[in-house]
Amino acid sequence: MSIPIPFSPAPRLLLGPGPSDAHPNVLRAMMTPLLGHLDPQFLQLMNANQEMLRSVFLTKNLLTFPISATGSAGMETCLVNLLEPGDKVTICVKGFFGLRIVDMAQRLGAQVNVLEQTWGKVFDLNLIRESLQRERPKLLAIVQAETSTGAWQPIEELGQLCHEFDTLLMVDAVTALGCVPVRVDDWQIDAIYSCSQKGLGCPPGLAPVSFSPRAVEAMEKRRSKVPNWYLDLSLIRRYLTTDRMYHHTLPITMNYALHEGLRLILEEGLETRWERHQHNHRALKAGLQAMGLTYTAQEGHQLPQLNAVRIPDGVDDAAGRKMLLEEFGIEVGGGLGELKGKAWRIGLMGYNSRPAVVLLALAALEQVLTKLGAKVPPGAGVAAANQVYLA
Amino acid sequence: MSIPIPFSPAPRLLLGPGPSDAHPNVLRAMMTPLLGHLDPQFLQLMNANQEMLRSVFLTKNLLTFPISATGSAGMETCLVNLLEPGDKVTICVKGFFGLRIVDMAQRLGAQVNVLEQTWGKVFDLNLIRESLQRERPKLLAIVQAETSTGAWQPIEELGQLCHEFDTLLMVDAVTALGCVPVRVDDWQIDAIYSCSQKGLGCPPGLAPVSFSPRAVEAMEKRRSKVPNWYLDLSLIRRYLTTDRMYHHTLPITMNYALHEGLRLILEEGLETRWERHQHNHRALKAGLQAMGLTYTAQEGHQLPQLNAVRIPDGVDDAAGRKMLLEEFGIEVGGGLGELKGKAWRIGLMGYNSRPAVVLLALAALEQVLTKLGAKVPPGAGVAAANQVYLA
Repeated sequence: MSIPIPFSPAPRLLLGPGPSDAHPNVLRAMMTPLLGHLDPQFLQLMNANQEMLRSVFLTKNLLTFPISATGSAGMETCLVNLLEPGDKVTICVKGFFGLRIVDMAQRLGAQVNVLEQTWGKVFDLNLIRESLQRERPKLLAIVQAETSTGAWQPIEELGQLCHEFDTLLMVDAVTALGCVPVRVDDWQIDAIYSCSQKGLGCPPGLAPVSFSPRAVEAMEKRRSKVPNWYLDLSLIRRYLTTDRMYHHTLPITMNYALHEGLRLILEEGLETRWERHQHNHRALKAGLQAMGLTYTAQEGHQLPQLNAVRIPDGVDDAAGRKMLLEEFGIEVGGGLGELKGKAWRIGLMGYNSRPAVVLLALAALEQVLTKLGAKVPPGAGVAAANQVYLA
Repeated sequence: MSIPIPFSPAPRLLLGPGPSDAHPNVLRAMMTPLLGHLDPQFLQLMNANQEMLRSVFLTKNLLTFPISATGSAGMETCLVNLLEPGDKVTICVKGFFGLRIVDMAQRLGAQVNVLEQTWGKVFDLNLIRESLQRERPKLLAIVQAETSTGAWQPIEELGQLCHEFDTLLMVDAVTALGCVPVRVDDWQIDAIYSCSQKGLGCPPGLAPVSFSPRAVEAMEKRRSKVPNWYLDLSLIRRYLTTDRMYHHTLPITMNYALHEGLRLILEEGLETRWERHQHNHRALKAGLQAMGLTYTAQEGHQLPQLNAVRIPDGVDDAAGRKMLLEEFGIEVGGGLGELKGKAWRIGLMGYNSRPAVVLLALAALEQVLTKLGAKVPPGAGVAAANQVYLA
């Protein structure tokens, strides 16, 4: 083979469902020379990362750390440590990632009960209560921010409800953490996972997780070894929180990135960050609606960081995304599952949730939609967004 | 909590069992802004990484790519895709990492047969032949470069031997790839895994794997789904080699690093690189022996990239490693398992296999050993190494 030249891609603005652009300081942190994974300096960094993750998850949970793989491995970590063959689990499915939880749980030999909701809508707590009463599962799993539809599931009272029935609550916060409130202790969440490449403003490669004392107790009562060695928390917790017993070699550079990403979040402040995401979302939404676009998620439950909108009739999905990418360097996401070919997903996550990004996105969308034959009132998108910013 | 300041560690020279220092060009490549994981530019990079991995593994295997986790996840990928409950597997154990394979295989419900060899020694092929004849396992697993002892297992003829008995050959090349010859096709290896942070000169976080058509056939004949979703090759191969069906979000930046690391290897040339590792090893070994140190691995089977030596009587393990780290910024590895407290493991891997590193390591070791009460002939280590270089 001929040896490729060094990689030097054309620049992009990542407004899809993730990865989102990493903060420039995070990228710079990744140039830091390596340390050994047992170097005292690196152990200190890992302790700081755990401490900062607790602050971002709003929890005191001892078992709070990044799993050394991407977000979906965080999902699998929760399931494989909490479920044994025959265990009952109720999974709330309202989009693509709920289905993924079902797939994983079935592979573990769990008795899976699926609660279904129309894609784009959220679950009513009464429906979940009835199901818990009937099924009394060991675990209930739900996605807080459904990446495939942009729907924002309220989960504030779900932990308390689950505990009435002695059920553990597992929450998917992959697209939520760092963008919208996630209060692990207040909301009594027992197992939660996220990723590094969305609200935390880092590259993909790590999956922060956290487990309540209730969840830890359930793990300690297991009758069988965790079938998955790499994600076995009984090994990982010894490595990361107690006697440093060697498990795997931590991804050093990814943890440098996480350190800087978490630092930036805490410097900004969680409340300020959530409000920033809301503010830029309101501007983007005003602009999209002024251009005639409608959201796939139900009103009142739309995620600020992931704006999924229906593609206007007659506009070609692939052609539109290609034009955005090639002419403006802007990536937006296509639809997943039921929404394939029918929706675009516009992310405003972490570093990318800012006015300059909102205005550029609307201006570029206007040009692309017009070229592809949609009737878009000229200038309306940007004008509506500016109205929000000027208010 | 108080927010930590940006991380800025004291510099290190990583001469342990890995991570080894990444090449400076690799670190620079990690500052490249992110791309979406389905961006045409990123797909091109992933294709190049697969192509370059094939060149480095010396294989035509279609299923050759990096798993999105560290080396041990590469080990688990091979096992979880090739073994089903009840399958017979023979595992050759001559150190810590052989034991890890046993642990993983047992979790999968395989019938595990262990072949044991003294730590530091290698297996004789006749012993393996007898076992294969008796057991007729589906899979035989062996570590080529045992990281815990520094022993170099010959595997050139093992593939052919395994195939006589219809057994698949799985090889652990975590510490081998990029340092010593690994010829997947010539040696008829069916499943092989490595890591990014040793011979490939990148940070930890990826596990390159490769599977022969025989191994693929065995996967396609499975009676059950792979229990581990994240490492299920039937999903990953669709994502990476055929229809780009979304599986997980690839670690973008780690793959930038791998691209640059592999490029540098191919620019240097595999044969030149292997010879470089040998040359610097000969110099280091001459120096260590002149200082009275002895290898833990048997003569004739010592890895050039991992020099495990017995700590001289009376010298304290922890004190010695601490002094090297604090006074010279040099990290060497302690002993694992049976060799805990008894050996130091000195890595000369990838970028760090060079004369400047050898001379500094010997000079610093002389000072540390002398301070800790060992009788070391002054200047003998460096003189012996220089003799090799000047020859």
